[in-house]
Amino acid sequence: MAIKVHGNVMSTATQRVLACLNEKGLGYEFVSIDMRAGEHKKEPFTTINPFGQVPGLEDEDLKLFESRAINKYIAYAYADNGTPLVFKEPKKMAIVGVGLEVEAHHFDGPASKLAWELVVKPMKGIAIDDAIVKEHEAQLAKVLDLYEIRLTECKYLSGDTFTLTDLHHLPAVTYLMATPAKALFDTRPHVSAWVADIMARPAWQKVVAMKNNN
Amino acid sequence: MAIKVHGNVMSTATQRVLACLNEKGLGYEFVSIDMRAGEHKKEPFTTINPFGQVPGLEDEDLKLFESRAINKYIAYAYADNGTPLVFKEPKKMAIVGVGLEVEAHHFDGPASKLAWELVVKPMKGIAIDDAIVKEHEAQLAKVLDLYEIRLTECKYLSGDTFTLTDLHHLPAVTYLMATPAKALFDTRPHVSAWVADIMARPAWQKVVAMKNNN
Repeated sequence: MAIKVHGNVMSTATQRVLACLNEKGLGYEFVSIDMRAGEHKKEPFTTINPFGQVPGLEDEDLKLFESRAINKYIAYAYADNGTPLVFKEPKKMAIVGVGLEVEAHHFDGPASKLAWELVVKPMKGIAIDDAIVKEHEAQLAKVLDLYEIRLTECKYLSGDTFTLTDLHHLPAVTYLMATPAKALFDTRPHVSAWVADIMARPAWQKVVAMKNNN
Repeated sequence: MAIKVHGNVMSTATQRVLACLNEKGLGYEFVSIDMRAGEHKKEPFTTINPFGQVPGLEDEDLKLFESRAINKYIAYAYADNGTPLVFKEPKKMAIVGVGLEVEAHHFDGPASKLAWELVVKPMKGIAIDDAIVKEHEAQLAKVLDLYEIRLTECKYLSGDTFTLTDLHHLPAVTYLMATPAKALFDTRPHVSAWVADIMARPAWQKVVAMKNNN
């Protein structure tokens, strides 16, 4: 198989790449990185990503890291496979580009911090810090207020079709939907419908199954 | 003029977009946003960016925000103008894509926090927090260690030609070169040569002049 993903199925960044490959209907070999054993901080993984973070991708001679960069590569290099996730026309692509940056710079910060407090800490038996939860719920609420307005204008965040922008939200959204932070999504009707729609995608459900069978 | 930039010349994100337009040799109208008066948090600016952050870009009917998304748009939409900053070939573009994500997710965090402590706080007459400086200098040093290795392999961060990856570093690098954090760059010979090279670009010097004349 040409494509190899080196990662961990519990990692949101790894899940993001798997979702993209599934949407594209591309086969891949999954190389599980044992993060508890620190494999991501050692060779051979650091020959793919010197920053020591999962995932890494190999496609023949090409080695890539950073999940969002990997997904943009997959979306363009395999434009004609499976679900179209980006556009070639510059103005349409620019709208996706803005959505991708908003996910990375506005949504991901508070969402990941909440997932850490509400999902990872309980799993590790560490006490949740209520002040941190409150602070990041307030930050996420502001982002979701703007998403609620956006989703009255179009069905998905970057237009009327599902794109890489929506896909990049799936891992953190799915973790948060199993926590009290679910209310932030449920109380905003357009956001709530969008979450239900994107989470139901077969490509994503395959990732969820892989995570649950872990 | 078709392109309008709404921003503030002191803002690194605004400078990033101006540098890109200059590299492309594109004319633009600059609409100065008075951030001390809070213009970025009010209409009409928020009709371009509902998140209330500079810069915003208008290109005919297209309205964009997030400096890195704006620059990707400019680089692709005006691919045939001025300096080529991206590639059409997916594997070559993927290398730029990784470099762009590394800037955004590894370099920018500590670099921006250091610029805040060492440039903005002294300007505002606020005391510098030495512990924060130390913490982020250590983080930035780790990134620059990897850049030093990378720059022994190729002249620029994403290959042997100047790309959007290098350009995105310019605003924060330039601010830090006027602070004690300059030593972090100067003590790494390949990083130091790269900084001198990219800072000397006429397109960037035009932005520096605009900032100095502000």
